[in-house]
Amino acid sequence: MAAPHKLCMIPGPVEFHQDVLDAMATKATSHIDPNFIKTFGESLVMLKQVLMCKNGQPFIISGSGTLGWDMVAANLVEPSETALVVNTGLFGDRFGECIETYGGKVTHLHADAIGLAPTLESIAQAIKAAPTPFKIVTITHVDTSTGVLTDIKSIARLVKEASPSTLVIVDAVCSAGAEEIDMDGWGIDVVLTASQKALGTPPGLALLVASERAMQVFQARKSPPSSYFGSFAKWVPIMQAYMANKPSYFATPAVQLIISLHTSLRQILSRPLAERFEQHIKVSDDVKKVVTSWGLKLVPGSHALAAHTLTAVYYPEGVTAQGVLSSIAGKGVIIAGGLHPKIAPTYMRIGHMGLSVTAENEHNYVKTTLAALEAALRENGYTIPNQ
Amino acid sequence: MAAPHKLCMIPGPVEFHQDVLDAMATKATSHIDPNFIKTFGESLVMLKQVLMCKNGQPFIISGSGTLGWDMVAANLVEPSETALVVNTGLFGDRFGECIETYGGKVTHLHADAIGLAPTLESIAQAIKAAPTPFKIVTITHVDTSTGVLTDIKSIARLVKEASPSTLVIVDAVCSAGAEEIDMDGWGIDVVLTASQKALGTPPGLALLVASERAMQVFQARKSPPSSYFGSFAKWVPIMQAYMANKPSYFATPAVQLIISLHTSLRQILSRPLAERFEQHIKVSDDVKKVVTSWGLKLVPGSHALAAHTLTAVYYPEGVTAQGVLSSIAGKGVIIAGGLHPKIAPTYMRIGHMGLSVTAENEHNYVKTTLAALEAALRENGYTIPNQ
Repeated sequence: MAAPHKLCMIPGPVEFHQDVLDAMATKATSHIDPNFIKTFGESLVMLKQVLMCKNGQPFIISGSGTLGWDMVAANLVEPSETALVVNTGLFGDRFGECIETYGGKVTHLHADAIGLAPTLESIAQAIKAAPTPFKIVTITHVDTSTGVLTDIKSIARLVKEASPSTLVIVDAVCSAGAEEIDMDGWGIDVVLTASQKALGTPPGLALLVASERAMQVFQARKSPPSSYFGSFAKWVPIMQAYMANKPSYFATPAVQLIISLHTSLRQILSRPLAERFEQHIKVSDDVKKVVTSWGLKLVPGSHALAAHTLTAVYYPEGVTAQGVLSSIAGKGVIIAGGLHPKIAPTYMRIGHMGLSVTAENEHNYVKTTLAALEAALRENGYTIPNQ
Repeated sequence: MAAPHKLCMIPGPVEFHQDVLDAMATKATSHIDPNFIKTFGESLVMLKQVLMCKNGQPFIISGSGTLGWDMVAANLVEPSETALVVNTGLFGDRFGECIETYGGKVTHLHADAIGLAPTLESIAQAIKAAPTPFKIVTITHVDTSTGVLTDIKSIARLVKEASPSTLVIVDAVCSAGAEEIDMDGWGIDVVLTASQKALGTPPGLALLVASERAMQVFQARKSPPSSYFGSFAKWVPIMQAYMANKPSYFATPAVQLIISLHTSLRQILSRPLAERFEQHIKVSDDVKKVVTSWGLKLVPGSHALAAHTLTAVYYPEGVTAQGVLSSIAGKGVIIAGGLHPKIAPTYMRIGHMGLSVTAENEHNYVKTTLAALEAALRENGYTIPNQ
């Protein structure tokens, strides 16, 4: 790994603050060291604050966002219970597959085309058509594969009205810490996410907050949780102990990653969250304005459907993924290719969340990226239209 | 976490080499960066080398040792298939519980007392008594709760002879990288471990190597794997891609932890493994000789049953856990209290693996710990006998 650092502008992992990286190099520390217990407990509390959840149960576990799906599927869905997946891309497909692995019955509600989201009407229709109320509805807040943003506030309100017993589950892997999520205010029952995106911490942690209602549903299970490593029954006492400043043990936590997360969460909460969300909107709008002014077409079908954490944009005609990605890498910037299997070779993804947004004035990561992309497109024979 | 560093002499996490810690602070790197792909692929190969497995399938996944149990239970045992747990402490209890979570039927074979291991005769008897051959036999190589070492070589040979179809699974969380494990030579089908013990890397990774035979058994499953995040079906293509120097994606790997692991594995393999194992035996023998010369009694029932990665030793009469642990912490050294629920308040555990063994001549971590412990015992009113 001796190669010089390239600016990491993919939709996660994102660039990390130096203090966050320094925390990663913390010397060996016992997982029941009093200072670490405090750090872990505070991280759990701060996670709830970022997600605007007062009384829910937070979990921070070694893993990735994917493990959060297992936790939902193995703790909140019992065999043969039903789930509606509001599907906006690859991550809806996979969340559904995960639920099926643990015995849940899944209905996928797809939009009419890639880049769109299922309408509120179609969701209402799917709920109405279900013979019994869905146990859960899952929504990918931002699908990292398509860059589509869903209106979780309106969907949560709709589900609450049309199917009050149904739990609203939000996959916020590519949104938590950048897009507004008001768990309490919007009636969201579970938010699951990961460390390496807008929470600004290296990859390796699964984070999840479950509402009091979700925990009551868990407590009322008839069958035991169907995962061991992802079992709420195992982890709740551990998380509660850390929050109560007491030692506890189920599996050794990722001490250094958690200290690093603590550093990042403190930075995030040192400023009003509303300001942070606004910054992400502004930078995202700027990026989208620039790339569309070049004549490129966004993958999301409208401005309202476009996430503020990444820009998914088609290559112009005659320009290939291989050409652009290697050309921009040659300029010291890494962006991501497409991920949705149906259109993967035709589009690229630029991540803009966390440090690259909040410290743009200081670092110019986004400006550097756009300049490199413009040059890469020209090198690949594309003529940027006069503006 | 601003407190000064205390020497971390618990049985994991252990003290880490500065190069390993520096690797933890690697700047943001894409999980499909060509340099990282190479690093990940090499780490998988080196993991097999440490475990002396030529053709098996290695896995390195965000998680902890516990996740390795889920991977065994969800991929190699089908519902209603049977497992024999050769139980030497808490970690046997829990591995069994994990297998039951995924529908396996578990028989625990306990030793006659805490500190002992089931005899070869009793294992042969249990195999003979089973109405159908066990699908797997699990053995905790070193039980971190009791400090008991099992003779996995002899047990594997016995199982191979008495029940050839049975897979031999070794939980090597507290042994891999310190105690000899010859997967190929001894006919072991799965070794699972974690990063934070004798592999000398901060916590956050589950590591597992499955033999070709184990992978054939997996391929012959009738039911799909019963975990999503821990599914061999999901991870095999990813691990094979990294080993073939190709990009791939299922869930974002813990980039920094893997670079850190790579650093540690290179250090480990820079010297003959036999030398490393000998060093661990020597330091362990020294520690045990010293503490028994003080009149203390080891938890393991004999020298042959005592692990070389930690020393589990009873407090002398009249001395409490609270007294010794806080006294030694006051001297800048952290050791662990007891963990086995039946005897937890009566004994302590000193970890000695990885850096604290291989760099003892340079750092004197073990000597420092023994001196601090001796002083702590005296402070707590214990009279060290004349020697």
